[in-house]
Amino acid sequence: MKKDFVILLAPDSFKESMTAKEACEAMERGIKKANSRIACVQVPMADGGEGTMQSLIDATSGKKYTARVTGPLGREVEASYGISGDGATGVIEMASASGIHLVRPEERNPLITTTYGTGQLIKTCLDHGVKKLLIGIGGSVTNDGGAGVVQALGGRLLDCNGSELGYGGGELGRLARIDLTNFDQRLQEVTVEVACDVSNPLCGPQGASAVFGPQKGATPEMVGILDSNLRNYANVIKAELHQDIADVPGAGAAGGLGAGLMVFLNGSLKKGIDIVIEYTGLEAKIKNADMVWTGEGSLDSQTRYGKTPYGVAAIAKKYDKPVVAFAGRVGEDIEVLYEKIDALFGIMQGVSSLEEALAQGQRNLERASENAVRLMNLFHQEQI
Amino acid sequence: MKKDFVILLAPDSFKESMTAKEACEAMERGIKKANSRIACVQVPMADGGEGTMQSLIDATSGKKYTARVTGPLGREVEASYGISGDGATGVIEMASASGIHLVRPEERNPLITTTYGTGQLIKTCLDHGVKKLLIGIGGSVTNDGGAGVVQALGGRLLDCNGSELGYGGGELGRLARIDLTNFDQRLQEVTVEVACDVSNPLCGPQGASAVFGPQKGATPEMVGILDSNLRNYANVIKAELHQDIADVPGAGAAGGLGAGLMVFLNGSLKKGIDIVIEYTGLEAKIKNADMVWTGEGSLDSQTRYGKTPYGVAAIAKKYDKPVVAFAGRVGEDIEVLYEKIDALFGIMQGVSSLEEALAQGQRNLERASENAVRLMNLFHQEQI
Repeated sequence: MKKDFVILLAPDSFKESMTAKEACEAMERGIKKANSRIACVQVPMADGGEGTMQSLIDATSGKKYTARVTGPLGREVEASYGISGDGATGVIEMASASGIHLVRPEERNPLITTTYGTGQLIKTCLDHGVKKLLIGIGGSVTNDGGAGVVQALGGRLLDCNGSELGYGGGELGRLARIDLTNFDQRLQEVTVEVACDVSNPLCGPQGASAVFGPQKGATPEMVGILDSNLRNYANVIKAELHQDIADVPGAGAAGGLGAGLMVFLNGSLKKGIDIVIEYTGLEAKIKNADMVWTGEGSLDSQTRYGKTPYGVAAIAKKYDKPVVAFAGRVGEDIEVLYEKIDALFGIMQGVSSLEEALAQGQRNLERASENAVRLMNLFHQEQI
Repeated sequence: MKKDFVILLAPDSFKESMTAKEACEAMERGIKKANSRIACVQVPMADGGEGTMQSLIDATSGKKYTARVTGPLGREVEASYGISGDGATGVIEMASASGIHLVRPEERNPLITTTYGTGQLIKTCLDHGVKKLLIGIGGSVTNDGGAGVVQALGGRLLDCNGSELGYGGGELGRLARIDLTNFDQRLQEVTVEVACDVSNPLCGPQGASAVFGPQKGATPEMVGILDSNLRNYANVIKAELHQDIADVPGAGAAGGLGAGLMVFLNGSLKKGIDIVIEYTGLEAKIKNADMVWTGEGSLDSQTRYGKTPYGVAAIAKKYDKPVVAFAGRVGEDIEVLYEKIDALFGIMQGVSSLEEALAQGQRNLERASENAVRLMNLFHQEQI
């Protein structure tokens, strides 16, 4: 009997049911109930979407803070951000300050919504003395190319009369000059990584305005204005800063915030899951484990595209580790996942409403975990 | 690699979703997808309740028949019964001819409902030449002590004037004499086993009328009459046939049909699951298997009391075979089942309505089975 059989627990959050950390805890409780000799290593994961900040904080025993910042419509909102346990890394989700959930559908208007609050969060992280920023940019309600971020950090966006632009994508048509004299110098010392899973360019039919504008409240007419304005933004950037951002993949992410972070913060766009994997040191931990467990609220054939369980499984397979995944919902056509995931289990214990299912998620995951190990116990007593 | 790893599949039906045979098929499909080298032996099970007839028919490649018989209220109904593949055994569920689902709530009146139709089904089985009868008695709407069965088989139940009694528990108060001259003689050669999971006596506070009468439509006043009538029935049986049935456990099952079958058909009452286990030759098949899988629509702490998965598991444990169970619903407090069941899995793949869950039962069971084997594959390649 091998005493140190190690299961690495690397689930994403189960959205609206439990955080990735809570999922780790539920798995570990179930595992220990079934076999107390199994050692567990918890690595709460995320894929750059909702829950990423929490997972990165949990992974480093960091701390979550809140700050009052300018919301998408100029009203103050309370946003949160995280600082890693060692104080070196700030973690921001743009949606916390500039997200679509902050604006009622009838108020959504990307001509005026701004990323200014996201810039304030960045500034606040700099005040903490971080040397690295991880920024998730999903869930935006803005289409301002990150202009608000630039403004919050001291950059001046001026029209041809030298007047500062106001908030929102509607203003960028007038942009003529960029003055970075007072732009926050601390950013020179800071590495910025942006979690971004889309590759849309800034402008054109595949650009930010055309593809994502409508869901942020843009009418067809507004889309035209916004797209033309972002093109002007790119042109001015090219003329003033000598950077050609227009066709860079991902520049159109988050209403052009992708472009803004690349240009003004020297940010690198990476797949969210890759940032999390790197930041958590997942690969080395997988190498030392005997088995890898992952999971997410929902698993289906789309899980292959940048979702946590598949990213985790891909690394596990690099080291030939068996992988088991759990999910609240297991969709159709999951056979494609078997390439990387050896076995996957739904955790539901019966018919229930979505509400009940979410509320019972931790119990259900614990029980499914317990019984998976109970099944394993039958067959590998010589191994575990 | 052992080539003949054998999994014995002995699920009950998943009520309203799939028969036990369909559950076997779904399990086998899932198993084979995950590991084609595993051999499966299907033993569709039942516990004496709904689905027992179908399972016993399936287990022997028998045939299901229908017959038009007298329903509980005297109206003709279409009832079904089964004959085993070898023609030697008839399988009857009393509810098919005399069940509560055949009478609308407002018409339920155990003073007049009769088991006559069940007697006709027995007679029909005798016409097939069977030598054994397996009778399930759950779901009755009658409280006639099996008097209807006796009458259908040629017995005469007479009052003190020598007039034949009519149908229903309300008549038994006038019973004075029993004439079995024309009682079907073929029954002498037939073994009768009755699936019965209750031990209520015929009369008294724990008797048929008091405990089960109300759910069959008896008012408190009727309960008094019915109980007194069954006592008279027992007294006349004692006087005329020299059998004391009143206090025999199970005599009160199915409105006293338990008593009637014991007295007039020499029936033995057994736990439903035990009858099915014996009849299917389950024990020998388990002995030859490497692992046992079972399941039912719902598993919870009550599963210990006469339900199929626990009965199957108990035998498996006699031979130290690992047991895995699957269920659509896994209730609270299932820890008590771990004594006999090594691992149990819910088959639900996400939130759904009960209707959807029932409709997708076979697919869900197949997938859960497939993934259980996929997990097993990881750990016992040397065994399977």
